Amino acid sequence: MARTPAHEMFDRDPASKAAGMELLDAGNGQATVRMAVTADMVNGHAITHGGYVFMVADTAFACACNSRGPVTVAAGADVAFLRSTRAGDVLTAYARERVVQGRSGIYDVTVTCEDGVVAEFRGRSRTIGAA
Amino acid sequence: MARTPAHEMFDRDPASKAAGMELLDAGNGQATVRMAVTADMVNGHAITHGGYVFMVADTAFACACNSRGPVTVAAGADVAFLRSTRAGDVLTAYARERVVQGRSGIYDVTVTCEDGVVAEFRGRSRTIGAA
Amino acid sequence: MARTPAHEMFDRDPASKAAGMELLDAGNGQATVRMAVTADMVNGHAITHGGYVFMVADTAFACACNSRGPVTVAAGADVAFLRSTRAGDVLTAYARERVVQGRSGIYDVTVTCEDGVVAEFRGRSRTIGAA
Amino acid sequence: MARTPAHEMFDRDPASKAAGMELLDAGNGQATVRMAVTADMVNGHAITHGGYVFMVADTAFACACNSRGPVTVAAGADVAFLRSTRAGDVLTAYARERVVQGRSGIYDVTVTCEDGVVAEFRGRSRTIGAA
Repeated sequence: MARTPAHEMFDRDPASKAAGMELLDAGNGQATVRMAVTADMVNGHAITHGGYVFMVADTAFACACNSRGPVTVAAGADVAFLRSTRAGDVLTAYARERVVQGRSGIYDVTVTCEDGVVAEFRGRSRTIGAA
Repeated sequence: MARTPAHEMFDRDPASKAAGMELLDAGNGQATVRMAVTADMVNGHAITHGGYVFMVADTAFACACNSRGPVTVAAGADVAFLRSTRAGDVLTAYARERVVQGRSGIYDVTVTCEDGVVAEFRGRSRTIGAA
Repeated sequence: MARTPAHEMFDRDPASKAAGMELLDAGNGQATVRMAVTADMVNGHAITHGGYVFMVADTAFACACNSRGPVTVAAGADVAFLRSTRAGDVLTAYARERVVQGRSGIYDVTVTCEDGVVAEFRGRSRTIGAA
Repeated sequence: MARTPAHEMFDRDPASKAAGMELLDAGNGQATVRMAVTADMVNGHAITHGGYVFMVADTAFACACNSRGPVTVAAGADVAFLRSTRAGDVLTAYARERVVQGRSGIYDVTVTCEDGVVAEFRGRSRTIGAA
């Protein structure tokens, strides 16, 4: 697997590392990130806190939109929570570019657990650095 | 400050506790949550990971929509990131109900750091339990 | 009522005029627009087409974000549909600025019909012209 | 092309008809709708009003989510405007189901004009009738 700017960025990302994320793949506007849900990631309903579902999607989004080079940041995102998960479950977030127009981009991220879709995330990116 | 179902829920929320959040206030469809950004919460650009900005907003949203009683969960949310923050900054998320119609609700959460707005979050809730 | 750049813009807006909209008020980052639902604005379920609910909100949003001067366009929006309406109903969209940060802004628009909330719209603006 | 419940619904939709829309295709959770932008569909910046861009996407969304049978309505949607169009341009909205979970669904709609992407729309559906 070729290293990309996304790999460099992930390697110096304390938050994703502390959450136990692994970058499985990145390149060509796509990225896949995996995270196991720990006992410290569940909320008061005993299901995975939405913040952690969002976080694994957001890391995959960041890796996808930085997989080619110029520095790109998240301007915003929408997430739909479709199925709850629990401690011990493993989440996989697969991000891919939908469209880039000028400095703005739209990326779709699907978070799954085994065969089911846990969440659909749509990220809005903004390129701030030079190509 | 009167205790509400939101306080009970927050007390048994390991994710929010592990992130160092404090529930400052909850009641009448509103809630305020505070979180200090630690060195483990920044991303590969050395700014607070979007997942943690979302998480403090999402906890405040959950406390606001459970402040009155029936069990309510997040169906989804949109977040706009307006200003970046860094390790050592303290984020405050203030959530309030905008409208509830049947089992669906819309809640607005503003995340600030000192005087500046860090993010605007809009949560979509779904009531699943009896009143 | 003082005229603003929003009034000039509304006066040369054929789409809003053709839909029978009236600009009731604009200024200081706020605007109110009214539209009666006609028989040509309902969909195959005999309720107001979501496109027209969005349109009255979007016009109010545009008037609010152009009420002060520099040319501002819509980068995107989220809408939640809360209650259906029918031909003969009158919709009122009230838009107000939530936050402006650099060239980006967030505006909230509430669409009502009599006492009920029909939709909540959140617009994302981008300033493109000089101040 | 086999007729579906979406075709029946489109045939009795005055709003889409009045806007000159054509349903090119519907079935299996997908639909394609075409609309020419008229002089009455532009806004005060002389570009297609966001309400009409949303409307063609929303009609395609409704046709996609009603292409299989049970009555489904729009709970909400997010739209990102990527490129402006003008009177005389022809917009094509292609909608497809991303995921359905219980009574909730997520549909993606891409609005194009010739080769360019005009808008990306993500609709949230809610099934209300029996299958």
